Amino acid sequence: MADELLNASDLKEALENLPEWQLDEDKTGIQREFTFADFSQAFAFMTRVAMLAEKHDHHPEWQNSWDWVFIRLTTDDLGGVTEQDVDLALAIDELLD
Amino acid sequence: MADELLNASDLKEALENLPEWQLDEDKTGIQREFTFADFSQAFAFMTRVAMLAEKHDHHPEWQNSWDWVFIRLTTDDLGGVTEQDVDLALAIDELLD
Repeated sequence: MADELLNASDLKEALENLPEWQLDEDKTGIQREFTFADFSQAFAFMTRVAMLAEKHDHHPEWQNSWDWVFIRLTTDDLGGVTEQDVDLALAIDELLD
Repeated sequence: MADELLNASDLKEALENLPEWQLDEDKTGIQREFTFADFSQAFAFMTRVAMLAEKHDHHPEWQNSWDWVFIRLTTDDLGGVTEQDVDLALAIDELLD
């Protein structure tokens, strides 16, 4: 498990595999919005993400309102994006395939 | 199911039964923060709130980060606080008794 921040080059490469994710404004996290059919579908997705988070031992900052879910991933201890964030983002994307 | 905004007097009375909840800044919602032992406990609580939300046919705006959950209740259609918000807040509080 990586415990260092990705450098700009590694981060750029990682984001090429995460086309729906964006660096947040201060470049300390990656974020993505999701829209579902309704609350039930949105929360079902959140439940699966929660399982992934426990499995990865890495957890999102996230928000939900009805059919909308917003997820931000950051590695708090280091104040930026690490391999842990990228791995969780990839796993989340896989849920939607 | 109430479909009108609470007036100031009714809102004040309702909040007396919801001592942990606060009116938000623009007085269009009521909000509460919760802290748990860890993510697993926080998400277990969120799952129970999600069930309540479906049962009440009224849904929160909410955020989570690790052990922290923030819930805001508002009635979007009317842009303020109704009996629906108060009822859901009371039901959420009951989960924690």
